[in-house]
Amino acid sequence: MENIAEQVLAGNRYALSRVLTHIENDTSEGRAALKALFPHTGRAHLIGVTGAPGTGKSSLVNRLAYYYRHPPEGEPKRVAIVAVDPSSPFTGGAILGDRIRMRDLAGDRGIFIRSMASRGALGGLSRATAGVVAALDAAGFDVIFIETVGAGQAEVDIARLAHTTLVVEAPGLGDDVQAIKAGILEIADVLVVNKADRPGALSTLRALTEMLKLAHPSQEVIMHHGRRMTIPGAQAEQAAPVWIPPVVKTVAIENEGIDDLAAAIGKHRTYLRESGEWQVRDRVRLQSELEDMLRDALMQQWQRRVPSDTYKATLEDVFARRLAPYDAVAYLVNHRAPAR
Amino acid sequence: MENIAEQVLAGNRYALSRVLTHIENDTSEGRAALKALFPHTGRAHLIGVTGAPGTGKSSLVNRLAYYYRHPPEGEPKRVAIVAVDPSSPFTGGAILGDRIRMRDLAGDRGIFIRSMASRGALGGLSRATAGVVAALDAAGFDVIFIETVGAGQAEVDIARLAHTTLVVEAPGLGDDVQAIKAGILEIADVLVVNKADRPGALSTLRALTEMLKLAHPSQEVIMHHGRRMTIPGAQAEQAAPVWIPPVVKTVAIENEGIDDLAAAIGKHRTYLRESGEWQVRDRVRLQSELEDMLRDALMQQWQRRVPSDTYKATLEDVFARRLAPYDAVAYLVNHRAPAR
Repeated sequence: MENIAEQVLAGNRYALSRVLTHIENDTSEGRAALKALFPHTGRAHLIGVTGAPGTGKSSLVNRLAYYYRHPPEGEPKRVAIVAVDPSSPFTGGAILGDRIRMRDLAGDRGIFIRSMASRGALGGLSRATAGVVAALDAAGFDVIFIETVGAGQAEVDIARLAHTTLVVEAPGLGDDVQAIKAGILEIADVLVVNKADRPGALSTLRALTEMLKLAHPSQEVIMHHGRRMTIPGAQAEQAAPVWIPPVVKTVAIENEGIDDLAAAIGKHRTYLRESGEWQVRDRVRLQSELEDMLRDALMQQWQRRVPSDTYKATLEDVFARRLAPYDAVAYLVNHRAPAR
Repeated sequence: MENIAEQVLAGNRYALSRVLTHIENDTSEGRAALKALFPHTGRAHLIGVTGAPGTGKSSLVNRLAYYYRHPPEGEPKRVAIVAVDPSSPFTGGAILGDRIRMRDLAGDRGIFIRSMASRGALGGLSRATAGVVAALDAAGFDVIFIETVGAGQAEVDIARLAHTTLVVEAPGLGDDVQAIKAGILEIADVLVVNKADRPGALSTLRALTEMLKLAHPSQEVIMHHGRRMTIPGAQAEQAAPVWIPPVVKTVAIENEGIDDLAAAIGKHRTYLRESGEWQVRDRVRLQSELEDMLRDALMQQWQRRVPSDTYKATLEDVFARRLAPYDAVAYLVNHRAPAR
């Protein structure tokens, strides 16, 4: 499997696909490949994209990907898209159908698209996504989009894998101040109002700007045509670098506002690098990934140690209300199988 | 603390309040009380109430509570309301303000209302809620409402504590087929269209009924004025008891449809009892509660066993990409502190 990891590092797309499948299925080959690839990770810019269904996230990501492949200046970037659907039991081709419609991306070897779905537990999907992203990072993709289908807790957890998180809204989906979920604003680095040519775009934009003011009361934020303007008097407080999420208007299917959005993402990347936040986010991500795996591993270790009959008997005591859950746990945690 | 548990069992409201505070704060007194109270649990009907903000859940729960206190026939039931707000850092009085407006409930000693909020982790809130519900169950409340502020994953997890889960929708909140979250229909035992006098109520009702048809393709469901009607031909398949979530229309602030809703809840309770599903849900709930606690306890045990310096050094190796997360976990799980 070290061989296949070398092929991935050398840019072999077929080897990459095979490795990703191994990682998704959590095979020993997948783990061996991740071990070999891990030292080569840490270079890609991970961009999470989340938002309710119907906001046009996929089109937006397609357009951004195309923009990075054909930038107005500078070198084209290599782009990977990981489309994650926690509510779908199918993997591989599920969201790919939508992708194929974007002909401009087809056949471009600087683009790699992968759909993922939850076959088992959500925790498993989150971990598999982390592994897939790590492999793509090692394979040399400069930008990796992690796109989720919805905006539930599972999606938010997955979007958190990223350095930069885009939260996409659209007018007319009931996304008024009340309906925007409380947690979603906190994870947004860039807010996007897509389908901004639709009725209600202005009120969505206003609602988001109002919410941002509430979230960042010490700074005045004025939005104008998707540009963030800071009131001069408030700048004195900005001695330490502070990131106020900008609100960007786009119409993805018309390719409008994509340059503004790319500029906002670029600014956030610069902010992350200059403030040291890039490294902080990297560490938080790796640590939380590790602790999730540690919890699962400890549970598995415990399951090997404690006979399942012991566990079942204890559960029956709880069901019969003879033993409170807290006391059952105290007993189970310290249980040792009799010496043989 | 056994003394205070006895006072709770004897119906002392002040002792109950104190015990609930101990449980929320996860004190040793709270754990001791839960141990003493646990054998007296398992009798209450737990009703989870979830739905997006603005659907009028609180009013609905108030009206239902009043209905159970003043039933058209039979004995009044003792009712507890646990209002859970995962997004609020404040506990105790946060949602209580709304409650006070409902004067009919004030001063009724057959009603007990408790607001809870997340001070720490969401997992902690879920566990604290389980403990609070257990204490109220032991204290002899016949019906316990577990009401959450939103419809995110945290809220859904909390609503799952219940025997019967109400999912509340309302017209005009963008709750079209697309916007209704995928997982929410699966957890609904009774669907409520509240604010049914508003424009769009019919289309919300139709959308829900369509979604139910998709979810239960083998049965035909026809909705008429909040009554579920089953097509005669389809009844042959209903030999084994099957529950198809009814859709009930209400206007809580006008007290309309509350009797229909109470009837639907009553039917679900009968279904649970007759099908054996009551016991199944009870066991699923207790087992998942226990496994959450077990995971946390194993992590704490591991933290006591492995020096924090060892953990920090391993993390640094991961941050520096010298050690892959999977291999770090394999090392950490099997780490033993040197014998002293």
